[in-house]
Amino acid sequence: MARFPRCLRRNCNVTTDKLARFMEQYKSRVEALLLQSARKKETPQRLGEAMMYSLEAGGKRVRPLLLYAVLDCFRTAPEKGDAAACSLEMIHTYSLIHDDLPAMDDDDLRRGKPTSHRRFDEATAILAGDALLTRAFQLAADDRENSDEKKIRLLQLLTAASGAEGMVGGQMEDMQAEEQTEITSSELAAIHDHKTGDLLAVALQMGGVLSDCTEIEQSQLDRYGRCIGLAFQVKDDLLDVEGDEAEIGKPVGSDETNNKHTYVRLMGIEGAREFLDQLLRDALDALGHIDADTEILSDLARYIAQRTA
Amino acid sequence: MARFPRCLRRNCNVTTDKLARFMEQYKSRVEALLLQSARKKETPQRLGEAMMYSLEAGGKRVRPLLLYAVLDCFRTAPEKGDAAACSLEMIHTYSLIHDDLPAMDDDDLRRGKPTSHRRFDEATAILAGDALLTRAFQLAADDRENSDEKKIRLLQLLTAASGAEGMVGGQMEDMQAEEQTEITSSELAAIHDHKTGDLLAVALQMGGVLSDCTEIEQSQLDRYGRCIGLAFQVKDDLLDVEGDEAEIGKPVGSDETNNKHTYVRLMGIEGAREFLDQLLRDALDALGHIDADTEILSDLARYIAQRTA
Repeated sequence: MARFPRCLRRNCNVTTDKLARFMEQYKSRVEALLLQSARKKETPQRLGEAMMYSLEAGGKRVRPLLLYAVLDCFRTAPEKGDAAACSLEMIHTYSLIHDDLPAMDDDDLRRGKPTSHRRFDEATAILAGDALLTRAFQLAADDRENSDEKKIRLLQLLTAASGAEGMVGGQMEDMQAEEQTEITSSELAAIHDHKTGDLLAVALQMGGVLSDCTEIEQSQLDRYGRCIGLAFQVKDDLLDVEGDEAEIGKPVGSDETNNKHTYVRLMGIEGAREFLDQLLRDALDALGHIDADTEILSDLARYIAQRTA
Repeated sequence: MARFPRCLRRNCNVTTDKLARFMEQYKSRVEALLLQSARKKETPQRLGEAMMYSLEAGGKRVRPLLLYAVLDCFRTAPEKGDAAACSLEMIHTYSLIHDDLPAMDDDDLRRGKPTSHRRFDEATAILAGDALLTRAFQLAADDRENSDEKKIRLLQLLTAASGAEGMVGGQMEDMQAEEQTEITSSELAAIHDHKTGDLLAVALQMGGVLSDCTEIEQSQLDRYGRCIGLAFQVKDDLLDVEGDEAEIGKPVGSDETNNKHTYVRLMGIEGAREFLDQLLRDALDALGHIDADTEILSDLARYIAQRTA
């Protein structure tokens, strides 16, 4: 049997062998590429260290995996997606650095390690985030594997998903919602759709562009992406009340303690579970409309909805 | 006689009528475009307000003016440069918002108005900067006036100039230099070359790409850009000791009070004046190697070196 990384064996009780191999292979691939592409010799040393520190901090690398899964599905060479995969992960990483800042969520730890502003200092963390965001677009523009036409299309998608109408806007809305005492489930879904959904969905869309998908395939990939983006959040909220503290790495019930708006609070545990099942069914239904080998994508959807950490 | 904006009549005693008309025309042009392109209807209201607040705060709009001056020089239609001009100004604006933050320079005022984090709050200022940086690249990718090939070339230049090896790297070096007691004039020049020079120089390079310049023309534009970038900084340092408080809008001698590394401190007033003259001569010499109408570009160089505010 193949050797799977400890985190996969421990956490992904719903992982099939094929999915586990896929995840291991492409997680290693994108992590090696990130190391190569983040730091250049002209980068001031401390800035380069801060950029690398956060990129190396781990994580599931879900966005790159989704992109590579689309390429796999349409038998597109993975090289075509390398720059896009790194760009997605750099944008995700910069957003975590800035979200952790004292003026935002004021977090001291991220994945068990000191956050960037705690390990370095606040100014360095702000600049490391700025530098990673800029590098993400630089990688996309410098990519030698794709035509200028395709690169421009990818950059259009990526900038729209990560800016004021996408991820940054979602973070703004999330901050403002925390000041409200009441929120409806559709308002909460709209915030998550921007804050986390847009960048997950764009990973799928970019994979579609790289695979020369038809408009119909693109719209089903987008539907799949929106469903799993929301499912990811609903599952997070459920794990906060049902999870194993040792596995999820934080105290059970911390959302309730921090008075956060969650689907469990809005819908109850049963309601949230039903909503999650519905999202998973919708995601799988979207894949049913795509005439290609969608096995990895459907396994990924199940993994996201049924993971235990 | 044409009506010039008050700031031009008051400050630019070295402005020729032709240059003043040019500056008025293209400053208005880029300001109108910024208003149109910064905010979209899906932008969360407070985020959009913060983005607009800083974009509307004024300033000389030097980077867009340099770009339009190159287009004028080579008789390229100004429409070709509109997206690039807005991108440059948005990147400059985001850098000011982040530089002003408490963790960085901790400034309460910028151009006589409260800084973004004072007018809104720190989290909103961080996000407004992130959103403007992302929007800058989005505008460049969405530009309908240029081919994909040209847009990719512009994005390559812009991301390189504004990231970890360019502007962001320069800000990091500047912060680290403030902790040093001694610095040489070449170290100071290297910091400024990144912190402010790279984005000024890239405005010229982008104008050259849009005008299909030859490699020789490009390299002379770059040389001109490097000289005026440095000249801009040397003149700033001189104005701090020689300027009129009412005109420069801050107390004379504030650099000395804040113990900043300046060219005046390193070279003395006479030395800094001679250095400035040399830079102006070099900038004009670079233009002499370009076979086109460089009148506006040479007037801009004189304006930068001889302005009184």
